[in-house]
Amino acid sequence: MVFPQLSRGYDRAITVFSPDGRLLQVEYALAATKRAALALGVKSKEGVVLLAVKKYVSPLAEPPTKIHQIDKHIGAIAAGLVGDGLMLIDRSRQEAQYNKLIYGEPITVKNLAKRIAMFKQQYTQYAGLRPFGVMMIFGGVDDQPELYITHPGGAFYSYEAYAAGMNSDKVNDYLRDGYKPDMSLEEALVLAVSAAAKGQEEPINENTVEMAVIDTKTKEFRLLTKEEIQRIINKLPREEKPS
Amino acid sequence: MVFPQLSRGYDRAITVFSPDGRLLQVEYALAATKRAALALGVKSKEGVVLLAVKKYVSPLAEPPTKIHQIDKHIGAIAAGLVGDGLMLIDRSRQEAQYNKLIYGEPITVKNLAKRIAMFKQQYTQYAGLRPFGVMMIFGGVDDQPELYITHPGGAFYSYEAYAAGMNSDKVNDYLRDGYKPDMSLEEALVLAVSAAAKGQEEPINENTVEMAVIDTKTKEFRLLTKEEIQRIINKLPREEKPS
Amino acid sequence: MVFPQLSRGYDRAITVFSPDGRLLQVEYALAATKRAALALGVKSKEGVVLLAVKKYVSPLAEPPTKIHQIDKHIGAIAAGLVGDGLMLIDRSRQEAQYNKLIYGEPITVKNLAKRIAMFKQQYTQYAGLRPFGVMMIFGGVDDQPELYITHPGGAFYSYEAYAAGMNSDKVNDYLRDGYKPDMSLEEALVLAVSAAAKGQEEPINENTVEMAVIDTKTKEFRLLTKEEIQRIINKLPREEKPS
Amino acid sequence: MVFPQLSRGYDRAITVFSPDGRLLQVEYALAATKRAALALGVKSKEGVVLLAVKKYVSPLAEPPTKIHQIDKHIGAIAAGLVGDGLMLIDRSRQEAQYNKLIYGEPITVKNLAKRIAMFKQQYTQYAGLRPFGVMMIFGGVDDQPELYITHPGGAFYSYEAYAAGMNSDKVNDYLRDGYKPDMSLEEALVLAVSAAAKGQEEPINENTVEMAVIDTKTKEFRLLTKEEIQRIINKLPREEKPS
Amino acid sequence: MVFPQLSRGYDRAITVFSPDGRLLQVEYALAATKRAALALGVKSKEGVVLLAVKKYVSPLAEPPTKIHQIDKHIGAIAAGLVGDGLMLIDRSRQEAQYNKLIYGEPITVKNLAKRIAMFKQQYTQYAGLRPFGVMMIFGGVDDQPELYITHPGGAFYSYEAYAAGMNSDKVNDYLRDGYKPDMSLEEALVLAVSAAAKGQEEPINENTVEMAVIDTKTKEFRLLTKEEIQRIINKLPREEKPS
Amino acid sequence: MVFPQLSRGYDRAITVFSPDGRLLQVEYALAATKRAALALGVKSKEGVVLLAVKKYVSPLAEPPTKIHQIDKHIGAIAAGLVGDGLMLIDRSRQEAQYNKLIYGEPITVKNLAKRIAMFKQQYTQYAGLRPFGVMMIFGGVDDQPELYITHPGGAFYSYEAYAAGMNSDKVNDYLRDGYKPDMSLEEALVLAVSAAAKGQEEPINENTVEMAVIDTKTKEFRLLTKEEIQRIINKLPREEKPS
Amino acid sequence: MVFPQLSRGYDRAITVFSPDGRLLQVEYALAATKRAALALGVKSKEGVVLLAVKKYVSPLAEPPTKIHQIDKHIGAIAAGLVGDGLMLIDRSRQEAQYNKLIYGEPITVKNLAKRIAMFKQQYTQYAGLRPFGVMMIFGGVDDQPELYITHPGGAFYSYEAYAAGMNSDKVNDYLRDGYKPDMSLEEALVLAVSAAAKGQEEPINENTVEMAVIDTKTKEFRLLTKEEIQRIINKLPREEKPS
Repeated sequence: MVFPQLSRGYDRAITVFSPDGRLLQVEYALAATKRAALALGVKSKEGVVLLAVKKYVSPLAEPPTKIHQIDKHIGAIAAGLVGDGLMLIDRSRQEAQYNKLIYGEPITVKNLAKRIAMFKQQYTQYAGLRPFGVMMIFGGVDDQPELYITHPGGAFYSYEAYAAGMNSDKVNDYLRDGYKPDMSLEEALVLAVSAAAKGQEEPINENTVEMAVIDTKTKEFRLLTKEEIQRIINKLPREEKPS
Repeated sequence: MVFPQLSRGYDRAITVFSPDGRLLQVEYALAATKRAALALGVKSKEGVVLLAVKKYVSPLAEPPTKIHQIDKHIGAIAAGLVGDGLMLIDRSRQEAQYNKLIYGEPITVKNLAKRIAMFKQQYTQYAGLRPFGVMMIFGGVDDQPELYITHPGGAFYSYEAYAAGMNSDKVNDYLRDGYKPDMSLEEALVLAVSAAAKGQEEPINENTVEMAVIDTKTKEFRLLTKEEIQRIINKLPREEKPS
Repeated sequence: MVFPQLSRGYDRAITVFSPDGRLLQVEYALAATKRAALALGVKSKEGVVLLAVKKYVSPLAEPPTKIHQIDKHIGAIAAGLVGDGLMLIDRSRQEAQYNKLIYGEPITVKNLAKRIAMFKQQYTQYAGLRPFGVMMIFGGVDDQPELYITHPGGAFYSYEAYAAGMNSDKVNDYLRDGYKPDMSLEEALVLAVSAAAKGQEEPINENTVEMAVIDTKTKEFRLLTKEEIQRIINKLPREEKPS
Repeated sequence: MVFPQLSRGYDRAITVFSPDGRLLQVEYALAATKRAALALGVKSKEGVVLLAVKKYVSPLAEPPTKIHQIDKHIGAIAAGLVGDGLMLIDRSRQEAQYNKLIYGEPITVKNLAKRIAMFKQQYTQYAGLRPFGVMMIFGGVDDQPELYITHPGGAFYSYEAYAAGMNSDKVNDYLRDGYKPDMSLEEALVLAVSAAAKGQEEPINENTVEMAVIDTKTKEFRLLTKEEIQRIINKLPREEKPS
Repeated sequence: MVFPQLSRGYDRAITVFSPDGRLLQVEYALAATKRAALALGVKSKEGVVLLAVKKYVSPLAEPPTKIHQIDKHIGAIAAGLVGDGLMLIDRSRQEAQYNKLIYGEPITVKNLAKRIAMFKQQYTQYAGLRPFGVMMIFGGVDDQPELYITHPGGAFYSYEAYAAGMNSDKVNDYLRDGYKPDMSLEEALVLAVSAAAKGQEEPINENTVEMAVIDTKTKEFRLLTKEEIQRIINKLPREEKPS
Repeated sequence: MVFPQLSRGYDRAITVFSPDGRLLQVEYALAATKRAALALGVKSKEGVVLLAVKKYVSPLAEPPTKIHQIDKHIGAIAAGLVGDGLMLIDRSRQEAQYNKLIYGEPITVKNLAKRIAMFKQQYTQYAGLRPFGVMMIFGGVDDQPELYITHPGGAFYSYEAYAAGMNSDKVNDYLRDGYKPDMSLEEALVLAVSAAAKGQEEPINENTVEMAVIDTKTKEFRLLTKEEIQRIINKLPREEKPS
Repeated sequence: MVFPQLSRGYDRAITVFSPDGRLLQVEYALAATKRAALALGVKSKEGVVLLAVKKYVSPLAEPPTKIHQIDKHIGAIAAGLVGDGLMLIDRSRQEAQYNKLIYGEPITVKNLAKRIAMFKQQYTQYAGLRPFGVMMIFGGVDDQPELYITHPGGAFYSYEAYAAGMNSDKVNDYLRDGYKPDMSLEEALVLAVSAAAKGQEEPINENTVEMAVIDTKTKEFRLLTKEEIQRIINKLPREEKPS
């Protein structure tokens, strides 16, 4: 923001195009997601792993759960503004329930991500609204493991592994290097934990991360216990393990 | 605000993102809460303590009650703009009643905090509204003692002990130092009072603080009498006791 | 307003927060109340006294009544913009009637003040509105005498004695000095009149002030006759009595 | 308007407070009323006199009637913008009819003025509206003669005699000097006419003023004929009579 | 517009008062009417004459009819923006029909003008609208001939003779000089035509003006034929007759 | 736009008057129509000719039909923004159908043009809208051939021959010179084609113009075939014929 | 954007005309489409080919399908903002279903394009909206193969071959050169692939493009398999084939 006057007017009041076709409020909303704690997902042939770093604003504070069950077979993390995330988690559950009610079957991860992407898009096109400052990560198992991402502007993508939030660029590089298409769920868990460790200055432990899996056998969302998380962290190679 | 022109436009009209992803109106609302009298909560294994400093605008004035009963088992303090606080206390009671009506059981402290957080969030995303200039402190006993905080932007957290309002930074440091996970209710009461004393220039007494407890036995919100408050103040170590 | 440009933007269009957490439109509304004629209330153990100075815009004009009966047991003065005051007096009566209709019993002074405070608050949070430029003084007798004040921003307080409007700072100082907790109603009447005299350049008389009492025996609002007001003014010590 | 920039922002878009608590749009609306032709009312023990100067925009033009009957016993003049006045006269008649319909009795002059004052007030508090540029003069007889004035901002007053519009300051001074509390209706008519003559550069005659009376005997609004107006003008002392 | 910055802000966005009590948008709308072709009306004891100059934007163009029948006994010309005029002619017809439907009798010219004036006024007081850039001339015969004018701001007047549009100041002067209270319809027709000739650089003829009369015998609106118009033009004194 | 600051504020946000009574947004909309391909209509005693130049944005593109049938006996061209034109063609068809439904007879060309003109006018008077950037040309046969034009501001005119769009000034001059009141349909077709040729840098042919006729015998809208267009072009005098 | 101040005001808040009749927000929306991955369509006598380049934001990401089936016989690509595209694809399907429901027959490609064009147009004319940053390509077979394009401003065109998105200018030149009116479907497939190759820096392969055909025999939309795409790429002349 060396020359703040150059962006004057294009990023205010309502979300309009800048002369080069950008929606600056959407880009600023993306910036908001980078200020939030790291969150990531990893897909393996045996299931999907979700991991969220817990940001302790104080040693006396317990942050609210970051990983939320959306449906029996789907979990989600809202990386970004906490309040905005609450709204989108709530909306996601409504979409899942609505799908069951109307079509008589569970929503697919892809359709859920698409519905939320379209919901977000509307907050970028109508005056009197601002975009959601949240990147959503949806993980679940339909016929096979699925991992979907929705951007503040309404785009959505399928990923093998994806990290959002603080230091996500570095962590995504790490995921790219470490990802193997035929990983087992166990390998995915380890990759998730070691990637999270990459993004934190402090060593991670069972109290600073939440984890969940949806495996292809049960097709059920399940939060990991602290013991389970501890067990995975212990599998990290020495230089990544907390001392 | 040395260069007020640098923030021009991002903090007006409606709550929109600044280029670095911040919602300035939310931050200014937070600033509003720092101008209000100190309020705090302390959780112990035997119950939750709420304490509010009474700000006497005149020796002839009696400020309105700061600690409000929301449900049989929940109390709340609204730290910030008095008028905004009235609205949120009112809304909290509605949420509690609604929960009983719809689900046939009392609302949990966490769900109450979450509902209020989501209510606050909406005031940060739609044009024609401003955020609430209020930090809410909810204390209560569900299965166990609970203490929750909601921010003006819609975030909420569980805390062991938390102070909002004037000098809250200093008081939170004090709470951090003095908090012990296995405190009795009596110890929590003393910690609350001594923390409040830290945040005031004048010595505190039974007329300048309100206190309430929700203990795990009765699970009932109860305001302390002036005698009870007096008794706790008398337990303060000499240097903290009013002379 | 030496540097008007410093407040540019924060005090216009809608009521939004300034960077230091203030709502400037609310503060300006408060300034509006200071331009209105003095109004005050005094609480005694035997009842509440309300007094309003009549501002004669012309010797041929009779200003509208300043002290209004809200319910059998409650009176009110709207200090500030005349038109805004009409609205709030009207609203106060509606609240009183509504309470009787819904709960089958008269509204308490405190609840009335709280309802009006919440009504005022809404005019500070939604776009397209401005705050009420009025300070309300409610006096009445529920189980005991009550005197309540509501600010333009939605705050409300219980007072032993309170003055709003022109020169109210000086008059409040005088009230503070002269107030005694165990005053009789007669003493309260004299205090009210002598405080009003303090705030006026011209000596006051039975034509320049309105007065009302709600005593604990009848619990009924009653406007004083000119003779009664004359009698009280005559009791003022010489230097305060009109020559 | 030597320094137009000093009022920048406080007098535009919507009616908001200036830092010193003023509503500039209301003050500008008042300025609008001063540009309109003179209108006045005089109260006597035997009835009320209304007088309006007719502003001939051309010798070929006949301006619309300025004095309007609102109810059998009430007349009104709208001093200010012609179009705004039409609206308020219309509204006044609706209020009068509504009162009869709902309460089964004619509206009092005071209540009518109060209803119109409250109607005007709303145009000063909500965005998307501007205040009415009109001062209303209501004259009528309830139990006794009544003369009421409403300001653009929503204030209303009872007057013995009052002039609005062009040169009204000078005319009000004249009314103040000439008014006697125990005037007969005839004396009030003469005072009205001579006051009107004071405010005009040209001598007045039966074609340049409209007049109406509501006397205490019939309690009925009646427009004076040109002959009657001529007769009263002839009673003016020489120096005030048209040559 | 030598100093355009002096009017900045008072003439934009919505119609608000300038510090001296003017509504600039209304004045600008008036300026719009001065850009339109001349239109005029003349009242005589035997009927009313309406005349509109046809502005040929091209020799191949036939401008739409300028004089419109509103009711059996009323005609109207909309001088100003063509599109705005269409709306007001349409509205006038609705008002006439509505009057017949509700009151069972034809609307009077005065009431029609008043209804349209009130309609126009609303476009000067509510945000999101602009005033109509049209001056309406209504001519008709109720009990006697009537000629009414409505301004863009909502004022309306009765005139003996009135011209709006281009060069109307000069033409109104001419009308003022030539008007005689006891004119015959024939004299009014000649006055109308010669006045129109005054306002045009080119000599007028039966193709460049439209004319209509509503006489007191038939009380019916009637457009003049080209032959009739030709006949009247031929009666003009030599220097005014087209060569 | 040498001094863009001179028009600041009058041409933005909503369509308001400039100090000299102009609606700049309407004028800019007119400018938009000048950027579109040429369109024209010619009226003869035997029928109406419509012609639209097809603007090939690419040799691979086929522009959408420019001449649209609105009713059995009416055709229309929307010269200006393509999207805006679609809306107005659609609206025209609705008006035609509505007329048949309500009045049981086909709409006249004049009434259709008037309805569309009034529709366009509304987009110039209400905030939150912009004028249509389209000039409509309506041709048809009611009792006789009719050619009507509507402007973006809501004006409408009857023309003998009219061209809108690119180079329309030059083409209208040509039409003015070439038009003869007693032309046959064949002559009108040739005039239309030769006028179109005047407005194009490239020679025209059966692929670069669309043509339609509504003749007085069938009173039916009919698009010309390429062969027919070719035949007419061949009748052009040598210097106008494509080489 | 050398002189950004020259466009100040015309491209903000709502979509209004600039003095030269342009809608800048629409032009900026067009700029947005140029930032998206290349998409194209080619029409042959035997059917239509759709091709979309897949933009891999990461090697771990699978972008959402770019080519969507709208109806049995129609496919579409949304080139531009992903979120906006989702909305328009959704809307297209609704239009197709609506057509079948109301008219009992499948929508034609042209009508679908027109409906979407009109939908887009509305986002350019009403305040509180921004245009869609998307160029739509509709391909299908009605009686014959059809390829339609809709612009962000609401214009639509029929094309023989058209490319939108990144480097589309260069690709459209290539299409222009390579297009032959009597191509077979096979030739169209090869032209599409070789044109896409022109627009990419990297050689294309079966993983970086999606393709679909709607042939005239089945009249059914069908996505090509990776093998089929591979087969076509292999037919590219050497210099265009991936090495």
